[in-house]
Amino acid sequence: MELISIIPDFSPRNDPALLAKAEALRPEILRREYPAPVRCRLNGAELAPEALPETALRKGDALVLDFGRHLVGRLTLALGATGSHQDAPAFLQVDLAEVPRELEEDPEAYRGWLSRSWIQRETLHVDLLPEEAALPRRYAFRYVRLTVLDTSPKYQLVVKGARVTAESSADREKLPPAPPTDPELAAICRASLDTLADCMQDVLEDGPKRDRRLWLGDLRLQALTCGVTFRNTKLVKRCLYLFAGTRFPDGRMSANVFTRPEPQADDTYLADFALMYPQALEEYLALTEDREALADLAAPALEQVDWVLAHLVGPEGVATPEGAKLSLFDWAEELDKRACLTGALICAMDAAAALCARLGDEGARETWRRRAERMREDALRAFWSEEAGCFLTGEQAAIHTQVWMTLAGVMPAGRAEAAFARAMAGPGSVRMATPYMNHYYVAALLKAGLREQAARHVRDYWGGMLRAGADTFWECWDPADPGASPYGGLVVNSHCHAWSCTPAYFIYSRQI
Amino acid sequence: MELISIIPDFSPRNDPALLAKAEALRPEILRREYPAPVRCRLNGAELAPEALPETALRKGDALVLDFGRHLVGRLTLALGATGSHQDAPAFLQVDLAEVPRELEEDPEAYRGWLSRSWIQRETLHVDLLPEEAALPRRYAFRYVRLTVLDTSPKYQLVVKGARVTAESSADREKLPPAPPTDPELAAICRASLDTLADCMQDVLEDGPKRDRRLWLGDLRLQALTCGVTFRNTKLVKRCLYLFAGTRFPDGRMSANVFTRPEPQADDTYLADFALMYPQALEEYLALTEDREALADLAAPALEQVDWVLAHLVGPEGVATPEGAKLSLFDWAEELDKRACLTGALICAMDAAAALCARLGDEGARETWRRRAERMREDALRAFWSEEAGCFLTGEQAAIHTQVWMTLAGVMPAGRAEAAFARAMAGPGSVRMATPYMNHYYVAALLKAGLREQAARHVRDYWGGMLRAGADTFWECWDPADPGASPYGGLVVNSHCHAWSCTPAYFIYSRQI
Repeated sequence: MELISIIPDFSPRNDPALLAKAEALRPEILRREYPAPVRCRLNGAELAPEALPETALRKGDALVLDFGRHLVGRLTLALGATGSHQDAPAFLQVDLAEVPRELEEDPEAYRGWLSRSWIQRETLHVDLLPEEAALPRRYAFRYVRLTVLDTSPKYQLVVKGARVTAESSADREKLPPAPPTDPELAAICRASLDTLADCMQDVLEDGPKRDRRLWLGDLRLQALTCGVTFRNTKLVKRCLYLFAGTRFPDGRMSANVFTRPEPQADDTYLADFALMYPQALEEYLALTEDREALADLAAPALEQVDWVLAHLVGPEGVATPEGAKLSLFDWAEELDKRACLTGALICAMDAAAALCARLGDEGARETWRRRAERMREDALRAFWSEEAGCFLTGEQAAIHTQVWMTLAGVMPAGRAEAAFARAMAGPGSVRMATPYMNHYYVAALLKAGLREQAARHVRDYWGGMLRAGADTFWECWDPADPGASPYGGLVVNSHCHAWSCTPAYFIYSRQI
Repeated sequence: MELISIIPDFSPRNDPALLAKAEALRPEILRREYPAPVRCRLNGAELAPEALPETALRKGDALVLDFGRHLVGRLTLALGATGSHQDAPAFLQVDLAEVPRELEEDPEAYRGWLSRSWIQRETLHVDLLPEEAALPRRYAFRYVRLTVLDTSPKYQLVVKGARVTAESSADREKLPPAPPTDPELAAICRASLDTLADCMQDVLEDGPKRDRRLWLGDLRLQALTCGVTFRNTKLVKRCLYLFAGTRFPDGRMSANVFTRPEPQADDTYLADFALMYPQALEEYLALTEDREALADLAAPALEQVDWVLAHLVGPEGVATPEGAKLSLFDWAEELDKRACLTGALICAMDAAAALCARLGDEGARETWRRRAERMREDALRAFWSEEAGCFLTGEQAAIHTQVWMTLAGVMPAGRAEAAFARAMAGPGSVRMATPYMNHYYVAALLKAGLREQAARHVRDYWGGMLRAGADTFWECWDPADPGASPYGGLVVNSHCHAWSCTPAYFIYSRQI
């Protein structure tokens, strides 16, 4: 995720009491050693890992180490020399990649709009061999390419070994076995869990390669999945407190929160992300019945709905174009997001009603229920086309629109399947670009009772990533355009992205 | 210096007793803080150092920090951010340069034969600002160029400060004041002392940028200068023990010794360098009267002369072409080095005689004296041309040849001035390329009684480097070709090089 809307004269207002609770919930980072690569390639040719310590590397040689699985953590290279005594520093380039295709792109040629600082390339000089060269940062990778930029004519480099200390706050010991499924779904489930686990760090990160940060839209999906798999509800709670503790002066929550050096809201607001908060809180409470969190967080949650209602809803009772522009939903620039935001707002109002019920405030619950009901009617009036058999925004018959109208309970009974089919292929359709949107598509299929279609889509879409070589699920995946990057270069894409982890949620909760 | 001759099946034979003494003489490294640059330039324009902390640096900006003097040590950059919260790592390139021209060359374009690992360029990612970013190595530099490779559209980089912890084993407190001279010689003397001091590290390094190593030819000149300036004879002694303690199985000394991780001879032999050892030892003993060093090191010193005599002298009684090829003397490929090596051998035999006298072995002294005398006669016969009025090697009338014949006492009385003049300009002359060779030229002028010419040459040659912007004296300097590099790129040249430090020796010892 990256910047969308920057708040002018931004001055966030932290709540020390809430942040103290978030701090107390800081998880332990568990470390696990991966002592050696499982495969190696030298200048494109297979090399047995046992042969590494005997292999002299010369200027220009490129050695790829494959650790056999996606890892997040620290890399140490045990380097030595052979030939004459080392008479000049060793000069190395180390590229770390989540997928092999990252290694094929030239970082120097990257001209995209995301910072190239995300590209995982380091150069290092080693003055004295042998050395245990510990790379300076945390990386997300399966593959490590070591290119010898120079040694000297007198000596060659030897990689005596390589090891990774992986970091995660996910405790795999506590993971209940997955429900029995067929091998395809089981493989999808495993990759989902690996994705989530590698994003479970000090907070629930969106992606351990990029942005390594807590985003609200991602959080909701991570929380759903984490709740039924690793069941690390403390970590979810910590993240919920971080958003509530770092709000804008007008009460809004940021789309994402920085946690270092101190917690601070980013100056980016996304209406759809803010509306996920009451839903995520309600889902958390449904799992935990946590009275403290209810007492602390319900009011901030309701404020998110209030603000959108007050600022981004027009006289027709649905979201305004301005509101739509303040929303993400998917990396789809041409998408008219009015119906999506209206749907998300209805869902948030339903969550608000549920929170009020938990608080014992039946009057407020009824108010929220009625507001939601009224907006369902307004949305149906504003967006449903009997002629098209689906919801339209202007000329657009976007699947996104059908999805959020379904999730919001606006879709007329018995019409979902045809509306989805129309929006997936017909005129005015808009392609889904992200697993994030695809999650909500599956959720909408399930809500519409189309369980078979939901399961098939999980197999097609997430299974498609596996067939394309994924170990963990990606930030972006368009089966029709496998090399697509919303950033102008696959080398900055995140290939382990939390918002892609939800097949495990659907499987563990036995929805598919 | 770089590889010249590699010994096949190299197996050096360390002497633990001598190396233990070298270890006991390891100097303390003195550290001194240089807390801030004295000048800054941002994208070419002057910037007051006080304005640095207020200056936002964007992608592509290049900031040059000038510490005002040549330094060897560690660099720390105090980095911060301004704008929105840092949302991506900062990606920086740091180039460290001894002279401004190094910054003008593109390291990527360097195709020379020395390892490009010597180029002082680091790239770093800073995940979290603010940070005190300590660069990982020791560098030799006056200038630091920081190029912002990327931040993000949301924040800018700030360099809040920069500091250097300089390292040297030279204790300036112990430096006696220089003899009174005129401002020009005083400036040359200061730069000489700075050169020597920055090469005084754990050993007497040839150059703190490159090779950061103990070379025998450099050592002799450093020892001469150090003996009359900083007077750190312990450090000289340590280096003499390192060469004696790490010899080849046949007793020869290497041209250079590695000291890390353990002392080890390089597999490079240079006959002229080996012949400097008895001279350097005799010069050390003349200063110190050190009985322990005499007892330990005289025999290894004499072996150096023995080996050359036994292997590199032909039936005419002078050095063979093979011997000449095993010698350096200067970076001058076309130079015929037979007379140079013959001269160096005679000088070494004179030193051998002096060492034997110190040992009280008058018989051996007399033997060496007679051998040297005989070789003087042979050399005169082999190389003197009455017709040319100078020494010739084949068609060559090299200044190098006149110099070493003079130092060896072969030059006929009263003929030196004309021979030098002939060899500096006439047909068959060979240009001097290094301060190392220029030192011996000055020494030969002095030996020939041409003190005025010697002083003038110091002003012309070393003064010429100062006029070209030197802070410390360089590895290579040809006034007629200021951009010359023997390595195919000035970016790898060493601009603080020990073999260039001897003007201070001539001045402190009142020879000029």
